[in-house]
Amino acid sequence: MTTTTEQLEQVARLAAEAAPVWRTSSAGERAGWLRAIADALDANATELVEIADRETRLGSARLTGEVARTTGQLRSFASVVEEGSFREIVVDDADAGATPPRPELRRWLVGLGPVAVFSASNFPFAFSVAGGDTASALAAGNPVIVKAHSGHPELSRRTAEIVAEALRAAGAPEGSFALVEGREAGNALVRHPVVQAAGFTGSVSGGRALFDLATGRPDPIPFYGELGSINPVVLTPAAVTARGRDLAAGLVGSFTLGAGQFCTKPGVVFIPSDAGFEDAVATAVGSVAGGPLLTDRITAAFPDGIRTLLDDASTSIIAHGAETPDGARPVVVTTDAAAVAARPETLLEEVFGPLTLLVRYRDEADLHAALHVVPGSLTATLHAEDGDDVSETLELLQLRAGRVLFAGWPTGVAVTWSQHHGGPWPATTSLHTSVGATAIRRFLRPVVFQDAPERLLPPELRDAALASVPHRRNGVLVIPA
Amino acid sequence: MTTTTEQLEQVARLAAEAAPVWRTSSAGERAGWLRAIADALDANATELVEIADRETRLGSARLTGEVARTTGQLRSFASVVEEGSFREIVVDDADAGATPPRPELRRWLVGLGPVAVFSASNFPFAFSVAGGDTASALAAGNPVIVKAHSGHPELSRRTAEIVAEALRAAGAPEGSFALVEGREAGNALVRHPVVQAAGFTGSVSGGRALFDLATGRPDPIPFYGELGSINPVVLTPAAVTARGRDLAAGLVGSFTLGAGQFCTKPGVVFIPSDAGFEDAVATAVGSVAGGPLLTDRITAAFPDGIRTLLDDASTSIIAHGAETPDGARPVVVTTDAAAVAARPETLLEEVFGPLTLLVRYRDEADLHAALHVVPGSLTATLHAEDGDDVSETLELLQLRAGRVLFAGWPTGVAVTWSQHHGGPWPATTSLHTSVGATAIRRFLRPVVFQDAPERLLPPELRDAALASVPHRRNGVLVIPA
Repeated sequence: MTTTTEQLEQVARLAAEAAPVWRTSSAGERAGWLRAIADALDANATELVEIADRETRLGSARLTGEVARTTGQLRSFASVVEEGSFREIVVDDADAGATPPRPELRRWLVGLGPVAVFSASNFPFAFSVAGGDTASALAAGNPVIVKAHSGHPELSRRTAEIVAEALRAAGAPEGSFALVEGREAGNALVRHPVVQAAGFTGSVSGGRALFDLATGRPDPIPFYGELGSINPVVLTPAAVTARGRDLAAGLVGSFTLGAGQFCTKPGVVFIPSDAGFEDAVATAVGSVAGGPLLTDRITAAFPDGIRTLLDDASTSIIAHGAETPDGARPVVVTTDAAAVAARPETLLEEVFGPLTLLVRYRDEADLHAALHVVPGSLTATLHAEDGDDVSETLELLQLRAGRVLFAGWPTGVAVTWSQHHGGPWPATTSLHTSVGATAIRRFLRPVVFQDAPERLLPPELRDAALASVPHRRNGVLVIPA
Repeated sequence: MTTTTEQLEQVARLAAEAAPVWRTSSAGERAGWLRAIADALDANATELVEIADRETRLGSARLTGEVARTTGQLRSFASVVEEGSFREIVVDDADAGATPPRPELRRWLVGLGPVAVFSASNFPFAFSVAGGDTASALAAGNPVIVKAHSGHPELSRRTAEIVAEALRAAGAPEGSFALVEGREAGNALVRHPVVQAAGFTGSVSGGRALFDLATGRPDPIPFYGELGSINPVVLTPAAVTARGRDLAAGLVGSFTLGAGQFCTKPGVVFIPSDAGFEDAVATAVGSVAGGPLLTDRITAAFPDGIRTLLDDASTSIIAHGAETPDGARPVVVTTDAAAVAARPETLLEEVFGPLTLLVRYRDEADLHAALHVVPGSLTATLHAEDGDDVSETLELLQLRAGRVLFAGWPTGVAVTWSQHHGGPWPATTSLHTSVGATAIRRFLRPVVFQDAPERLLPPELRDAALASVPHRRNGVLVIPA
């Protein structure tokens, strides 16, 4: 069901027509549209989970939870829209006495126009057709055109039908939402003059290719890609001594979750070289099964990734999980910090699937030399005890990741006002998050009105409306009572 | 005085070493450093203006005002840093009862690392060595490396000396600020692994080349370019009838200001075809002199730009300003909306210098067809009367520009909390402003701490510090008393 050039043109034309309606929609209208999508997905959850399980084999428990996460996310963005801070309204009154005299300025953020969203394979709901990029782009006031992931085509089509129908029934304009399929259609989408921004979750190679298309346009557009992440974890000797067995169990649970197919999987773990932590991990992983991988491509790539690691003389497999007839077997590989510092491009390449690399370090200098070469990541985790001096380690981790954790494990990304899901290249391509309330900022642009007669201002920028929305006036923040 | 490869490496190494000091500097320290620069520039204003006038011939009155604008801008960013909202601090407390249980998250924005700034020729202070990009990058907590504009090399060096010395005397680390010279050094700078973002003000061709280098890096970095802008103006028939002579005088004042070398110069003016406005402009411009242009390249390009316009059969010159021995003579060219709609790439190319293009429109349909093809601009201006129905015109102008004016003229950009100086390509390369308080956002990245022990949190994110800074906690905005 590859989308043809003619079909794409039709989709783009309708999205362009819908754009001004979305941009000028009220907070109430837009929140209603987002909630209508959430309600429709919830109402069809059983059918959707069944299709998703058939196509992804992620299991109905996980998938049912993911539907709830996805609809919760849509409703969360509805609340963000209603709260109104996302507009970043700033008013400076005229000042005839200033040198030079200052005009009245009223600034806000408005929707950019049609947004292209490229779905991921590993979250067929939360990072797919009606996932976070779609929710935040709609919340910002933009029509969305989704490029379906080939890993779950039927689910993509059915989800898109439900979204489009919910929007239609709720009174949103034709052209608010569409799905396209096929690699060529995706490439054409990101280059289409109507499209004003793109969101992407996927591989470094796929993301880079689309990023290059987006930035190479005659009129470059922002490309918000979440690409690859190794998610370093550091265990101090004191932490391993105090709670090595718990840490081993926690690590195994995290790197095998979803068969190791999370963008926040702890892919590299720095461990003290003489603490016996490897044994604890080997014990913990022994009975843990992997699971089927998402696609044939991922299934084929997993053993390739292991082989590439093992080609390095410093590495060896120290433990396997349980063997199952249908699924990738968890695997734990070790190396040392000196090897990582010397050959990061080989040893710190992300391997999608249930694999983690334990890196033995002798001392802080050894550890820090290796941390210096860890690629940009979504997360970095530090397990330390109260007495540890971790200031330099923490400084290095903050430079390499957007989320720094001190307890628990990086898998699991809360959808909140405060969340940041992003990091230095190749974790993401931009200084913005793809999860949480502030993800909406990616699809907005500022516009300021200078000395506008009140009748020509957007209703939201008139004095009467300011009373009910957080804003800044003459430099001072104002929160509605 | 071209910067050598070895010199650039030295500058980059020192900036990398200074970066953590800037990133972790307190608001008070950073504000002090910004004010120290401002004070030092003010103290040396007479000398700086003299050098600037010799190199740019912009005149001492204009240049003295520009120094004040520049130092005011530095002090304004000091206040922005002290106010603290720019950190966008968001805290969500842990919620063990949520499904799944939610960790504590504390998010803020921190400096990216060393920033490259490419100076403009037309504002030798406000958009040059110590201009807006430098001020906002330092305010965000980053060392800055400026690529000097070849149009005012001596001024660039002297300004850089004063800035570096002021920072040193105020206790900022070595490597906080540096200047490089030469095109090759600029290209190397934007590709240097140490550099984490770039700001640029200049031509579309120069900006595009650097944008391509920045986005083409193995690790792409954000490139904030302000490139080119035609700044459309629309006059309704009623406005011309009511105050045609004032509008003509205002337009002439604006397009000849600074010899037409402002990025906000009104370059294309849509006028009703039968209102006699051309005569009013011809009268107003007759006695107005231009002035010397900034560089030999700009001086040579101005007549080329006029010739290109006149090659189009639809155009003619309807008026000239006063002839002066040393300077570009103001010129007013006319065409019609149908020609603009048919050949925007010829007729709507920005011409740097004292030229404006009057475009006659017969009716709204004629006007709107032409507005559809106006390139993205920094500003759009509408002069209308109370009885005019301008909704569709206004809709089109908002799509094409970041600042929409309803009175006055686009030259003159107030440095305020609310300002937005940006717009669709080619006005700027991003969804951010290069003037005003929110320009700081370009040089910050989010970091979130999950379940961090208080002692390991940055001081600004601890509960005690939150009492004195605007932030959001559990979804609710909090303003310090």
